[in-house]
Amino acid sequence: MSVKNGRQFLSIPGPTTVPDEVLAAMHRPAVDIRKGELVEVTARLKDGLRMISKSKGTPFIYIANGHGAWEAALSNVLCRNDKILVLESGSFAAGWGQAGGTIGLDVEVLPGSWRKAVDPAAVEERLKSDTSGDIKAVLIVQVDTASSVVNDIPAIRRAIDNAGHDALLMVDTIASLGTMDYRMDEWGVDVTVAACQKGLMMSPGVSFTIANERAMARHQKADLRTAYWDWTNRMGPEHYQNYAGTPPVHMLFGLQKAFELIREEGLDNIFTRHSLLAGATRAAVGKWAEDGEFAFNIIDPNERANSVTTVLVTNPQNLDAIHDYCIEKCGVVVGVGIAALSGKALRIAHMGHINAPMLLGTLGSIEMSLKAQNILHGASGVEAAINYLATNVPR
Amino acid sequence: MSVKNGRQFLSIPGPTTVPDEVLAAMHRPAVDIRKGELVEVTARLKDGLRMISKSKGTPFIYIANGHGAWEAALSNVLCRNDKILVLESGSFAAGWGQAGGTIGLDVEVLPGSWRKAVDPAAVEERLKSDTSGDIKAVLIVQVDTASSVVNDIPAIRRAIDNAGHDALLMVDTIASLGTMDYRMDEWGVDVTVAACQKGLMMSPGVSFTIANERAMARHQKADLRTAYWDWTNRMGPEHYQNYAGTPPVHMLFGLQKAFELIREEGLDNIFTRHSLLAGATRAAVGKWAEDGEFAFNIIDPNERANSVTTVLVTNPQNLDAIHDYCIEKCGVVVGVGIAALSGKALRIAHMGHINAPMLLGTLGSIEMSLKAQNILHGASGVEAAINYLATNVPR
Amino acid sequence: MSVKNGRQFLSIPGPTTVPDEVLAAMHRPAVDIRKGELVEVTARLKDGLRMISKSKGTPFIYIANGHGAWEAALSNVLCRNDKILVLESGSFAAGWGQAGGTIGLDVEVLPGSWRKAVDPAAVEERLKSDTSGDIKAVLIVQVDTASSVVNDIPAIRRAIDNAGHDALLMVDTIASLGTMDYRMDEWGVDVTVAACQKGLMMSPGVSFTIANERAMARHQKADLRTAYWDWTNRMGPEHYQNYAGTPPVHMLFGLQKAFELIREEGLDNIFTRHSLLAGATRAAVGKWAEDGEFAFNIIDPNERANSVTTVLVTNPQNLDAIHDYCIEKCGVVVGVGIAALSGKALRIAHMGHINAPMLLGTLGSIEMSLKAQNILHGASGVEAAINYLATNVPR
Amino acid sequence: MSVKNGRQFLSIPGPTTVPDEVLAAMHRPAVDIRKGELVEVTARLKDGLRMISKSKGTPFIYIANGHGAWEAALSNVLCRNDKILVLESGSFAAGWGQAGGTIGLDVEVLPGSWRKAVDPAAVEERLKSDTSGDIKAVLIVQVDTASSVVNDIPAIRRAIDNAGHDALLMVDTIASLGTMDYRMDEWGVDVTVAACQKGLMMSPGVSFTIANERAMARHQKADLRTAYWDWTNRMGPEHYQNYAGTPPVHMLFGLQKAFELIREEGLDNIFTRHSLLAGATRAAVGKWAEDGEFAFNIIDPNERANSVTTVLVTNPQNLDAIHDYCIEKCGVVVGVGIAALSGKALRIAHMGHINAPMLLGTLGSIEMSLKAQNILHGASGVEAAINYLATNVPR
Repeated sequence: MSVKNGRQFLSIPGPTTVPDEVLAAMHRPAVDIRKGELVEVTARLKDGLRMISKSKGTPFIYIANGHGAWEAALSNVLCRNDKILVLESGSFAAGWGQAGGTIGLDVEVLPGSWRKAVDPAAVEERLKSDTSGDIKAVLIVQVDTASSVVNDIPAIRRAIDNAGHDALLMVDTIASLGTMDYRMDEWGVDVTVAACQKGLMMSPGVSFTIANERAMARHQKADLRTAYWDWTNRMGPEHYQNYAGTPPVHMLFGLQKAFELIREEGLDNIFTRHSLLAGATRAAVGKWAEDGEFAFNIIDPNERANSVTTVLVTNPQNLDAIHDYCIEKCGVVVGVGIAALSGKALRIAHMGHINAPMLLGTLGSIEMSLKAQNILHGASGVEAAINYLATNVPR
Repeated sequence: MSVKNGRQFLSIPGPTTVPDEVLAAMHRPAVDIRKGELVEVTARLKDGLRMISKSKGTPFIYIANGHGAWEAALSNVLCRNDKILVLESGSFAAGWGQAGGTIGLDVEVLPGSWRKAVDPAAVEERLKSDTSGDIKAVLIVQVDTASSVVNDIPAIRRAIDNAGHDALLMVDTIASLGTMDYRMDEWGVDVTVAACQKGLMMSPGVSFTIANERAMARHQKADLRTAYWDWTNRMGPEHYQNYAGTPPVHMLFGLQKAFELIREEGLDNIFTRHSLLAGATRAAVGKWAEDGEFAFNIIDPNERANSVTTVLVTNPQNLDAIHDYCIEKCGVVVGVGIAALSGKALRIAHMGHINAPMLLGTLGSIEMSLKAQNILHGASGVEAAINYLATNVPR
Repeated sequence: MSVKNGRQFLSIPGPTTVPDEVLAAMHRPAVDIRKGELVEVTARLKDGLRMISKSKGTPFIYIANGHGAWEAALSNVLCRNDKILVLESGSFAAGWGQAGGTIGLDVEVLPGSWRKAVDPAAVEERLKSDTSGDIKAVLIVQVDTASSVVNDIPAIRRAIDNAGHDALLMVDTIASLGTMDYRMDEWGVDVTVAACQKGLMMSPGVSFTIANERAMARHQKADLRTAYWDWTNRMGPEHYQNYAGTPPVHMLFGLQKAFELIREEGLDNIFTRHSLLAGATRAAVGKWAEDGEFAFNIIDPNERANSVTTVLVTNPQNLDAIHDYCIEKCGVVVGVGIAALSGKALRIAHMGHINAPMLLGTLGSIEMSLKAQNILHGASGVEAAINYLATNVPR
Repeated sequence: MSVKNGRQFLSIPGPTTVPDEVLAAMHRPAVDIRKGELVEVTARLKDGLRMISKSKGTPFIYIANGHGAWEAALSNVLCRNDKILVLESGSFAAGWGQAGGTIGLDVEVLPGSWRKAVDPAAVEERLKSDTSGDIKAVLIVQVDTASSVVNDIPAIRRAIDNAGHDALLMVDTIASLGTMDYRMDEWGVDVTVAACQKGLMMSPGVSFTIANERAMARHQKADLRTAYWDWTNRMGPEHYQNYAGTPPVHMLFGLQKAFELIREEGLDNIFTRHSLLAGATRAAVGKWAEDGEFAFNIIDPNERANSVTTVLVTNPQNLDAIHDYCIEKCGVVVGVGIAALSGKALRIAHMGHINAPMLLGTLGSIEMSLKAQNILHGASGVEAAINYLATNVPR
């Protein structure tokens, strides 16, 4: 017996809820891939990527998940045995670096904390010490989906500039693009990596790289390029070359609709919405944390992401109790800790196609699970979330 | 600026949220209507209607909304100038009676209250006084969607029996079937009227009558039968006769899937789920009502429906304020009072394809609207709802 | 073993193939029915009906199939015991008349042939003899789906006028609207009946009546009006009154898309397309008929409809052989004779969402069935159809 | 003005028509990717791949098109500077070879003809001359989508064995799998490459490699493996590792449904259906070719593929005339020549979700275009196709 029959709530940090309009846009007959409508779709998607990343750079659309785009990004601008500096602040920059290792790069990790953002001063110091210029690229994530930290990309840019270093700045925005501000050109990012299944609200399977002129220049001499990932190949005159072969027809139609939804709402509104829902989540978690069973993984409130909140759980048994109750009794899939936080944390996603009632329904279900199972928590987190929203949503 | 972008929450008492699986079942090519798959669908739908209404009677499927089924039910068992006794407890029995007036029936309303269930004693008294047997049918709704009252159908049957009267008992279950127990045969109901768009979770456009043997006997001499509604015509050997013409192909496929979902969850679980979500709603409204701005329309807690809760609002201006805030800021469509309660009440639906997070999201959004606009309300209704569910959902 | 796996071809004269775009338009969440988007949809649908019927009259949208709209049309303009004159040219005018009989009308059938259009001279003669003006309405179909005849509506209007008779002219366009020209106002039609599932390309379940001013005047004194069908009730201020209750939400969204497709192609193009595909069908059937096994049901080529072609089959066994081969081997559902032509005819539909390859695929499959089973037929009908189209489709 | 409004016919050799059921299976909410339903889907897809390829090998599912799978296959079994022997018989083996060049392989093309299958004797001769065993792998396509040739894979295996060579046999089945017999294990194929968008009837975006034990052994020492493509990584314990990151949720649901359709029809029936439709196409083209304007690209009838037919056009102007007429007048997208045959050939696809009426509709539209534009062609190709099917489809 449960009260779960109704629409399942998917509150994991990716893939996120795909809007009905996006699913509907994928439900249509296949089309010609040489000319006609699909050629325009590709052009529109590239415009959309430039708009969302605030960049005049060159976008590339991959049939691949984010891990594929990682490989694409590195192989297009680097040479065998080049050193890359990976800035740790959770799980994903390290994963990106490891992928670099498999294609022949020399990977150095700048140690960081899973509970803090990357320290720009440490970056500056390390780069200053690289007097021989061995480091060819610096890799960072804007938001780490595992730790839920948000890094300060402009500060990293300044650190590189302060060090007078010419390493490329490569930023993984997979868990942030479309949820918070990102200004590729203004912030001096050389290569952006993104994927469609989080803030961009699309079913997973398409990812992106965007290159600025510096990156395109490095590309000319990069010797790790392969037919499938190669930017130059993808800039050829035939439409299929954009995809190094057959385009992912239905995925592209879906993505086009997702970008339309983003244009309709407007980036500023989207960022504010995410900020508000993140604030409400933190208000709720803050209450629950009053009794010691829970804690924010990210210590500094200013370093908490607007797309996902990682919550440490003192008693690991409670983790399964909460997760299972939510899914079995309420129909809510709550995210759990991964990698170093596996078995130690909940992750509450609040990104993409999500509104106040979806968030309150999720938080309410978690709170039900706490009360029903006598798991220690402070006052009502949901009431705090409601208060937060009622106070902060502009009239 | 809003926090509404995400899935819209439709919290009106019909049409209710259509499950994704049901919408998907409608998204398919048209088929032959003379033979093949569709013929089996019709048979399966009739089985489903018997299962849900707990009846061995004869079901009829109309392309029409509930108002059409009203006309169908009356015209198939009554004769011109027959008297019908309409038992008032809100808006809809009266509406049914008025429809009867337009087809030539003599309509008598047994006055009742919009805030109370029909009084069986009053029914018994009136029928006892009908010594000439003028009254041919008694009309009642199980749940009135406007007032949110639930009537006690077995008690009405006893009242008729106590009066020794042979009027048909005709019950409108449009707002109750699939949300609470209904036992057509055991309770001695002669004609059941139902529709697909509330507890049955289907897009509106199909409605039903179910007749027991007594009703079929009356049907033989009824002189108000017309080609479109006529039961006899619809019992003919050709498949199209079930629909008095072309069947509503895609609607039937959708309805078939909705019935499958009902079978999967099981009626008992469905009724318990509705009872729990209704209880949670009443827990929330009870809190909000502590400060006097709000009140339950139905006075006696035992007469409150499990499918919808009508909440009286003291200050009519607050009604629009709440409704508009919910839709514009949160993406939640809250029902409003209709007919005699127009401008005076909110209606919170909790029927059909709805689970704990959907309800908590709706209640949370309403509470946001109260707080944001300084509308008087007691303690947190949402917290009360969460407490209610955490305590009452079986482990 | 078959060569049928692929998209099934539905070549029956209704319901016809629903365009993918229309099905997609129905696949979306339910919405509020009191205000918002759906209110505009209703208005747009009424505009569309006026556009397609070339009328400034008042349209009404029924949740019902065509048989329901028949009852709606008659009950809104006539009184008990009024005489109606039904003009026979197949099955459907007679069916409409019979429905009139069940609601209390006095039905007179002007006998005609199933193989010919209605003779206007016979109509004029009969009306001239009705010196007492007993006949209150004349009922005719523009196309009879069973016989595949097309009637000359302007000629019927002239016959009525020549007789100086004031009977209403009521036209059933269910099998013609959206496939051939229809000019309600110019042709002096008083009441039009239509349905969505043939030329209008929508899934069945919605039908229409359109009334001109003369009809609205008669409506004022009609005494057969009932709550569900009543025009006056449906002209009330509340949106739901358009549907005498809950609107058929998803059906309306589908219909809106179908009307958009009609606007995009344009009525003139649609009519030419139907004319060309009908011509190709007749070219094919003409060839097959050279060997005597087949014959056109409608004798006069000028009286053959552009929406469906009824083909008489000499040997009834061949009928099942063709029908079953087409469905089992090829995945093509060919229509069969109904009513008086049951067991005696094939019906090849060429209306609605159909293009050259769909028609040629259907005709090709029928021809396969003839060859494979040694059923006598002349030269290649498909080649003749191709020749016809190649010659007649404008460059 | 056209007769194209209806369902568009997509007659290009990939992506092919996606069945409505497959599109519908993709139209559903996203799900958890760590556990639950999706984990079972992955297992079922692997079973399906083994069933369709007749192999007990290890399948890998890539988010990528076929070009991605090419890279995956090569990088998992080869080392830098390994020599691969590419067997030319059209465009695609060469393309695969070129991709190998970009990842560091030494590519040798065994020259062949675009109008003939690979000659096994030439393969044997070349391998015999490789006394030092430099050649590590032999690459061939089963069907070349550009030339429409079908190669004899068992004969190639025998050639390798006759030469006593231990090169891996790597076969690209992208344009053949699911359209004709393929027996990976029995035929001694070491690595199979496939993709979803042709015979497998799925929207493009997923591709496959299947490895036998010999290939897995080579994999252990391959030094071209990268994180995204690496088989070992994809065999890890976590579900996401199957996809080296986020799985393509909706694509997997679609693919699962496509595999269900394949199981339902049965491989043998599918192969016979393709054989029959290919035979009908060749019957039609044979007629058209009688007048010299057209010719089969593949000279030997035994070497013509069952999935696509490439037709040489003498006068290049006719190519556009046919293509444009078909799409603009009839709504049929006919394939055109690519690579060396660009501007010189038509390609008529007859693979995947296609039945007799779809093929006859396509051929009929092409024939319309010939007649309408006075392009020389022999007798009616469509009539010949109908005759062929009527004669050869088993009763």
